Amino acid sequence: MLKPSERGVNMPASPIRKLVPFAEIAKSKGIHVHHLNIGQPDIETPPSMIQAVKDADVKILAYSHSAGNESYRKKLVGYYKKAGIEVDFDQIIVTTGGSEGIVFGMMACMDFGDEVIIPEPFYANFSGFAVMAGIKIIPITSHIETGFALPPISEFEKLITPKTKGILICNPNNPTGYLYSKQEMESLEDICLRNNLYLFSDEAYREFCYDGVSTSAMQLKRIPDHVVLFETISKRYSACGARIGALITKNKLVYESVMKFAQARLSPPGLAQILAEAAIDLPDNYFEITKAAYLSRRNLVVERLNKMPGVYCPTPGGAFYVITKLPIDDGDTFCQWLLESFSFKGQTLMLAPASGFYVTPGLGKNEVRIAYVINNEEINQAMDCLEEALKVYPGRVD
Amino acid sequence: MLKPSERGVNMPASPIRKLVPFAEIAKSKGIHVHHLNIGQPDIETPPSMIQAVKDADVKILAYSHSAGNESYRKKLVGYYKKAGIEVDFDQIIVTTGGSEGIVFGMMACMDFGDEVIIPEPFYANFSGFAVMAGIKIIPITSHIETGFALPPISEFEKLITPKTKGILICNPNNPTGYLYSKQEMESLEDICLRNNLYLFSDEAYREFCYDGVSTSAMQLKRIPDHVVLFETISKRYSACGARIGALITKNKLVYESVMKFAQARLSPPGLAQILAEAAIDLPDNYFEITKAAYLSRRNLVVERLNKMPGVYCPTPGGAFYVITKLPIDDGDTFCQWLLESFSFKGQTLMLAPASGFYVTPGLGKNEVRIAYVINNEEINQAMDCLEEALKVYPGRVD
Repeated sequence: MLKPSERGVNMPASPIRKLVPFAEIAKSKGIHVHHLNIGQPDIETPPSMIQAVKDADVKILAYSHSAGNESYRKKLVGYYKKAGIEVDFDQIIVTTGGSEGIVFGMMACMDFGDEVIIPEPFYANFSGFAVMAGIKIIPITSHIETGFALPPISEFEKLITPKTKGILICNPNNPTGYLYSKQEMESLEDICLRNNLYLFSDEAYREFCYDGVSTSAMQLKRIPDHVVLFETISKRYSACGARIGALITKNKLVYESVMKFAQARLSPPGLAQILAEAAIDLPDNYFEITKAAYLSRRNLVVERLNKMPGVYCPTPGGAFYVITKLPIDDGDTFCQWLLESFSFKGQTLMLAPASGFYVTPGLGKNEVRIAYVINNEEINQAMDCLEEALKVYPGRVD
Repeated sequence: MLKPSERGVNMPASPIRKLVPFAEIAKSKGIHVHHLNIGQPDIETPPSMIQAVKDADVKILAYSHSAGNESYRKKLVGYYKKAGIEVDFDQIIVTTGGSEGIVFGMMACMDFGDEVIIPEPFYANFSGFAVMAGIKIIPITSHIETGFALPPISEFEKLITPKTKGILICNPNNPTGYLYSKQEMESLEDICLRNNLYLFSDEAYREFCYDGVSTSAMQLKRIPDHVVLFETISKRYSACGARIGALITKNKLVYESVMKFAQARLSPPGLAQILAEAAIDLPDNYFEITKAAYLSRRNLVVERLNKMPGVYCPTPGGAFYVITKLPIDDGDTFCQWLLESFSFKGQTLMLAPASGFYVTPGLGKNEVRIAYVINNEEINQAMDCLEEALKVYPGRVD
């Protein structure tokens, strides 16, 4: 049989996917599985967004502009203005989800073999995008003891080589939930300016901040040409399946380059652009309502976790994830055991082992990520399961 | 200002795009521009497909399976059966347009610096996808004198090096409209088998065959593991803006590898998958109706062109394009002149210079591509313009 390419072989598989067969086995036994493993919100997509697609009079579903419909980009300017971010519509390229924007940004700014520094633990798919773009991720470790705060700038500077082209952050962070402070963002600004680096900023969770507000990389005044922003409507409006995101940059050369990638793939999804455009007309209190739901869940999860003996969970400032330390030997083994060998009152839970979010070998072994995308009643049930599981897990370590 | 990467600079711009400002100037002068330059059909998207989206009860627009909804893939098996192609639903990965499938296929089967042989002239965006994948396109020239038939296999064999990993064809062909015969497909099968090469086959225009039927690469019995099929609903159902395609392969290793790329980008567009699934239920005579429209246009275009002094246009067997030779010095200059300096009865036409479809320098200079995606009345008006233009064009060469 003809073999795939080396990169096809080296392309990382989803770190969560290997648990799916075990979840299916648990379900086939009649066990209810609480899914805390993926960032698929349970919040309804605003009905007005769905309705906009139903109301649209589409005769020929034609290619849109490669940068996305002009009407949508012009309305997005208003969304950003409200978020305290000044951009023009011709600095926005609508992409197929945030994913495509990240790949285009990596390709347009970095060559094969170039390096990008990313605080770990980080969103696992960044590794896949780096394989696609042929670039190398240099991890800089953040620690649960500091709540996953930005590592000191001196640590970043030790990692910079002639191959380093940028720093990539996710703020508020997936998987840690950490919200970078204004001071931390300005430290990143300093280092990017001093070392002539791009600052790639994935701000998918901008609205979901519970202690303070997020500082966008686009608000850093001294490095407008260094910033490449990755956006998505997936989490913001609970519209993950739409596949609409955006790449935003004020750097004209980068914009022109990304446009060539965008033209090659012709256009972003057409129906979903109609849906996304309708999101801009949601009432101003839309985010308050969803944020209040997530805040209450965050508080519940953190409180429940920290009450369990041997468990430590920092209180993250944003997104809808926590990474928690558990008294266990190995997160991968534990998460599989939860599905394969454990149940409590006919229930169990599916978690994401944190090892998949680190690239430094051995890190995160006793940590798991929890996505609080289920309601408080279910969270309580899931936490009951976890509490009980930790009592009986054979690999418990104190 | 921070500079883009080398590949960002080298990424080819759309060869048609540079003409767009000139078309806008012509329109601003009140001149009607007949658009024969892009493959955006004027045929309506079947209303039942649009209606399926309107009828769908979507509460949370969630991520779909990374390979696409199982229900859609299972129905696609029926579509392929009717087309004489035997595939299982777990050999199909739904992609974001055909474009994404081509990029994933290139990346999963070839490494940086590997080579793929493509008959030229070819679809210009293949060059962009090759830059993304970091692979090298080796062109093999087909000629207008033979109607752009497949070059002799002996010519292919001269180009094979240790870096050659595959041959990529588009059948029926964009931009030439050429329909590969069964014998030609079997020649490709021979060479792929003998040299252990992938056969990448873009069959976007499968149904649009006017003289004979298309032979799918998937119907070649001796190389099931060599074939990677690129599909799209864009032209088939006049749904270019949906961005739904597919990558299909019976090679399990390649399938698994492509799945990892698909998982990294999470899922294909959700609403558009509903639209695409509804296409499978269209009446059996759907393609007959659209095909009849295109056939009549093809005959008209070819007839009109060949009646013009100094013009030669072969009769292509499929798709909705012709490449025609004109008595001109330079296609790029001529196409710009048509928009900038010419009009006839208040009209002009926009064509695609064929040079953008060749990579061998100098080829296609006196050729243009015409997409017959407008109705016969407009085709006649456009051909009147072209006939008149060729009489007065200062760069006419006999």
